[in-house]
Amino acid sequence: MDDVGTIGCNELHAASQRDGWTRCHFSQSVPRGGGIAFARCFACVLLGDDTGSSLPFLSEISIPTQGAGNKLMTPLGLQVCMGGDDDLHFGPAMVNKLLAVAVLGGIGFVVWRYLCPSCHPPKPPVLDADEWWGPDHLKATRDESIKPFKVVFKPDMIKDLKDRLSRARKWTPSLEGVAFEYGFNSKSLEKVLQYWKDSYQFEAREKYLNTYPQFTTFIQGLNIHFIRVKPDATQGVEEEEEGRRGLIGAVDKASLIKEAKVQKKQERLKRIRERERSGQIKNLHSERTASTRDWSSLLNNDFLKYMQQVVPLLLLHGWPGSVREFYELIPLLTKQRPGRNFVFEVVVPSLPGYGFSDAAVRPGLATPQIAVIMRNLMRRLGHKKFYVQGGDWGSVIVSNMATLFPEDILGHHTNMPFVQHKCTLLKTLIGSVFPSWVVEEKYAERMYPLSKFFSFLLEESGYLHLQATKPDTVGVALTDSPAGLAAYILEKFSTWTVFDYKHLPDGGLTKKFTLDQLLDNLMIYWSTSSITTAMRLYSEDFSIKKRALKLENIPSPVPTWVLQARYELAFQPAGLLKYKYPNLINVTILDEGGHFLAFEMPAVVADDVFNAVSAFKDWHKNKAKEGKTEL
Amino acid sequence: MDDVGTIGCNELHAASQRDGWTRCHFSQSVPRGGGIAFARCFACVLLGDDTGSSLPFLSEISIPTQGAGNKLMTPLGLQVCMGGDDDLHFGPAMVNKLLAVAVLGGIGFVVWRYLCPSCHPPKPPVLDADEWWGPDHLKATRDESIKPFKVVFKPDMIKDLKDRLSRARKWTPSLEGVAFEYGFNSKSLEKVLQYWKDSYQFEAREKYLNTYPQFTTFIQGLNIHFIRVKPDATQGVEEEEEGRRGLIGAVDKASLIKEAKVQKKQERLKRIRERERSGQIKNLHSERTASTRDWSSLLNNDFLKYMQQVVPLLLLHGWPGSVREFYELIPLLTKQRPGRNFVFEVVVPSLPGYGFSDAAVRPGLATPQIAVIMRNLMRRLGHKKFYVQGGDWGSVIVSNMATLFPEDILGHHTNMPFVQHKCTLLKTLIGSVFPSWVVEEKYAERMYPLSKFFSFLLEESGYLHLQATKPDTVGVALTDSPAGLAAYILEKFSTWTVFDYKHLPDGGLTKKFTLDQLLDNLMIYWSTSSITTAMRLYSEDFSIKKRALKLENIPSPVPTWVLQARYELAFQPAGLLKYKYPNLINVTILDEGGHFLAFEMPAVVADDVFNAVSAFKDWHKNKAKEGKTEL
Repeated sequence: MDDVGTIGCNELHAASQRDGWTRCHFSQSVPRGGGIAFARCFACVLLGDDTGSSLPFLSEISIPTQGAGNKLMTPLGLQVCMGGDDDLHFGPAMVNKLLAVAVLGGIGFVVWRYLCPSCHPPKPPVLDADEWWGPDHLKATRDESIKPFKVVFKPDMIKDLKDRLSRARKWTPSLEGVAFEYGFNSKSLEKVLQYWKDSYQFEAREKYLNTYPQFTTFIQGLNIHFIRVKPDATQGVEEEEEGRRGLIGAVDKASLIKEAKVQKKQERLKRIRERERSGQIKNLHSERTASTRDWSSLLNNDFLKYMQQVVPLLLLHGWPGSVREFYELIPLLTKQRPGRNFVFEVVVPSLPGYGFSDAAVRPGLATPQIAVIMRNLMRRLGHKKFYVQGGDWGSVIVSNMATLFPEDILGHHTNMPFVQHKCTLLKTLIGSVFPSWVVEEKYAERMYPLSKFFSFLLEESGYLHLQATKPDTVGVALTDSPAGLAAYILEKFSTWTVFDYKHLPDGGLTKKFTLDQLLDNLMIYWSTSSITTAMRLYSEDFSIKKRALKLENIPSPVPTWVLQARYELAFQPAGLLKYKYPNLINVTILDEGGHFLAFEMPAVVADDVFNAVSAFKDWHKNKAKEGKTEL
Repeated sequence: MDDVGTIGCNELHAASQRDGWTRCHFSQSVPRGGGIAFARCFACVLLGDDTGSSLPFLSEISIPTQGAGNKLMTPLGLQVCMGGDDDLHFGPAMVNKLLAVAVLGGIGFVVWRYLCPSCHPPKPPVLDADEWWGPDHLKATRDESIKPFKVVFKPDMIKDLKDRLSRARKWTPSLEGVAFEYGFNSKSLEKVLQYWKDSYQFEAREKYLNTYPQFTTFIQGLNIHFIRVKPDATQGVEEEEEGRRGLIGAVDKASLIKEAKVQKKQERLKRIRERERSGQIKNLHSERTASTRDWSSLLNNDFLKYMQQVVPLLLLHGWPGSVREFYELIPLLTKQRPGRNFVFEVVVPSLPGYGFSDAAVRPGLATPQIAVIMRNLMRRLGHKKFYVQGGDWGSVIVSNMATLFPEDILGHHTNMPFVQHKCTLLKTLIGSVFPSWVVEEKYAERMYPLSKFFSFLLEESGYLHLQATKPDTVGVALTDSPAGLAAYILEKFSTWTVFDYKHLPDGGLTKKFTLDQLLDNLMIYWSTSSITTAMRLYSEDFSIKKRALKLENIPSPVPTWVLQARYELAFQPAGLLKYKYPNLINVTILDEGGHFLAFEMPAVVADDVFNAVSAFKDWHKNKAKEGKTEL
């Protein structure tokens, strides 16, 4: 077979008309976008005839400019004749065929495009905003009050706990040469339990856990616990009325704030004077971090003359975490920063069934339903529009909020993005063959080879599988045994902080956290006996009912900012995240940090959240300039 | 386009030669087996040219008998020309193409055949028969003695256990309307724990657990515990020297047995006289089952004049079972039966790491390595050849024994066959489209739809996933909390007995078992603190090292008999089992019974084992007749 020239579609047409049959070999130089050229682009083409039926795939089509007739010559030496002797006529029919090629080829393209559409995204389902999760007999209750709350470690509970810890049985020795590879190393466990029993200062830690103002309020049948911290601002602070752009101080609020500020200032001055007298003021200063000191020196600078906004931010924890994860982060978010004309009021709830929040009494409370509860909570606190941040289940819930209530969520910050949009999954698969199409080379090893990722996932998801199917079974032992609970929960703070910590005899537990920090979190589970109800969230969220909502395929228009730690359980680059978050503004990729990022690196998270919200504000401003007033 | 006739390949050839181009439409009447006809059969065809490259799929090819040349006309009106103007010639080339079609089609068939070969089966690996699993410092120990063993429930242990049970915390209430669907129902659990604490007769149960003679012996660094029960025979019994066919009584053994029998008979007569005096004899009679009474009436019949064989049988339990599973079965196997010229000596070991057997101190003791230990145990007891029976892990281990030591295993009986031979998996997949190719219609619903099976498997395998990855973590809680252990283990005796029991508020726990039976088994785990080491078997058996042996693809020549309960976790018909067990003699399919079959239906299992061994003996006899003397 001779290649006698390369022609484009038009030339083919013309040539065809001249001599009935035309031979052509398409090379790379053939312009793309046309019917047959398109075929080259996809390496195959569907050819159709007038009847609408189709001939299966021809990979490459050669049309020689000389030959016996209007034939398409395949590289295999089989000639495909266009037009026929008796029943097929050249001319318009031929053109039709070429068009058919274009159309059918186009269908392939459309199928691809359809799989990853920005057009026709499915609409979010409407969930019942009043769905009742508490006991039926409380349905008459319409208590919307916000009650103060304190963490209490009852002496009886402490005594019982210490007793259980001291009567622990002889733990099964770990296998020779094994650190955390088979789970929590029993030698290392003994040290943790010893500390819990003998060195953990229950009273002091209880006090610490009461550092911030805490409340409960009754929502959809459940008492929901939350921390609420308003900014530590002494001047120049105005609250931002939710969702409106710019500096807006509603008259009533402004006067209230002013009054509060005066009172706060007076109290602060009083405290400082008292400390000065008792000599504590020096310690107070030395406790400040370098960056705090830098800001302090700037606090009286000109920028503070501008009024500050207070913006509401919802922070959500996951499993096996708690509100404790945010204790180091909270002051960094509620403190004014140089160069920022806003500061946060943070609301940090315990998820339903976790710690101090009630658990549902009937099946069905999955992350979309928790999203409803959290939105109701924020509304009760007067925040109709607000920012959200989350990790672990918290990240799933804030993502659901951004999907279900895009009007209410001003911006969405997550440190555990895990998009399961069908296009993300498809592209992830394609990337396993061509990683560079999907992810920058330097991050490729965080995703690929997929076999490595799945192997890791398989190894680390046994707890998930069990909790998604039989949480009540394993929950009995974890409710009954503090040692068992410690092993079960703290294992995650080892491996999920740095994967390789599982090869360290002590699991590297205290490399990033203090035992006090870890045990504070554990105490929230132990003192409330909430491990079973917490684990049930896995069963609910992997249920058929929840999955039927298919939220993962509904893109959220809320501006989104992603923070990705080095040792987060899964990594997805912006190109994969965008299917779910089309308004993805930024992805901050860290070379360190693990799953419990707010707990481990609060300063990094705080900086990133400030950057994110600043960008969210700009985004809304630009939207407004564009005349889009939906936000 | 006109269809002007239907021709076969030869006609096509002839026609083509006549006029250069031939048109043809293949209809159903075209004979199959030829190149293009083959294409019809598969609805598409790969056509090759002389260069060896191929043209993608043409689904249907029309060759009109009249036309412009040697063209193949597609139903779309596109003519595919065979042979060319310049470089392709009709005739031999055309024949080559048709041959290519046949060859390529044939390759598909060969690939299929190759995947399921009986030729070239892989050979079993040779494992180290002396691999050391105990502490290094015991390596000098060469103690091969067999020591008597008694189960002891120490008063301290009982006291501590009751104390733990009485201080159990308030269990998390199950969700409304939920029975065992989220795991063990906490209301039901309370009743079990109450019984364990207040009604379980520790002393009596300890005594019961010592019903049979028990021993330990030191193998490969581990003390292995086992029950050994020789037949309850008063006359006509001879031991079968392992592996030899027919009635063989070694002189020394025969005299020893005679002596023992005389002694036993005297003791028995003495006991009966004592009972007659104390009036107990009546009760003794009334306790006998109907079938026992039937046999008793036959015991003096003619058949007993024939000498009986004592054949060694190894019985292996699994997780979360123990030797306790066989207590009801043992007397049924060691008692003479009418119509049988053999009776069993049973050896029932605790698996390493389970109950009263030591656990390995280092990684690597998976089911193939346990197979080595069990064979060493049987050899130590003087059984070079023996029969094996197992369920759960026991079934995996006896299957491994049949694969690794086919010379030693006289017959293999399993009540949990689960073949993972690649052909079995492939055929299972094919069966998901054509179930009737794989399984009888009445059993199809035990396998298909696959989605239902996988969904069930997913729901029921969380424990497996966790135990295969982090057994030491969850082991802490289960070692520390008897309530937790009860929930974790007894859940399996609910759902795995009848799947739908999980919808019963009490899990149907006492429908097939008494609480005493269930708690006996639990006590073996609790009193020995062996749950963690028992669960580690999952980690070892799913390890890369174990899987690399690929035992699942090595057929075992040992005659095999399968007993399949209605509610076993997986069902595979004979056609799927045969890839692994080519000498599969029989499959007994039950319409009832669950995973713990020997425990639940000992009489059924005993009958089936007698049938199986009888058939194994016939099989060996036939083999001998055929002059195959390998056994």
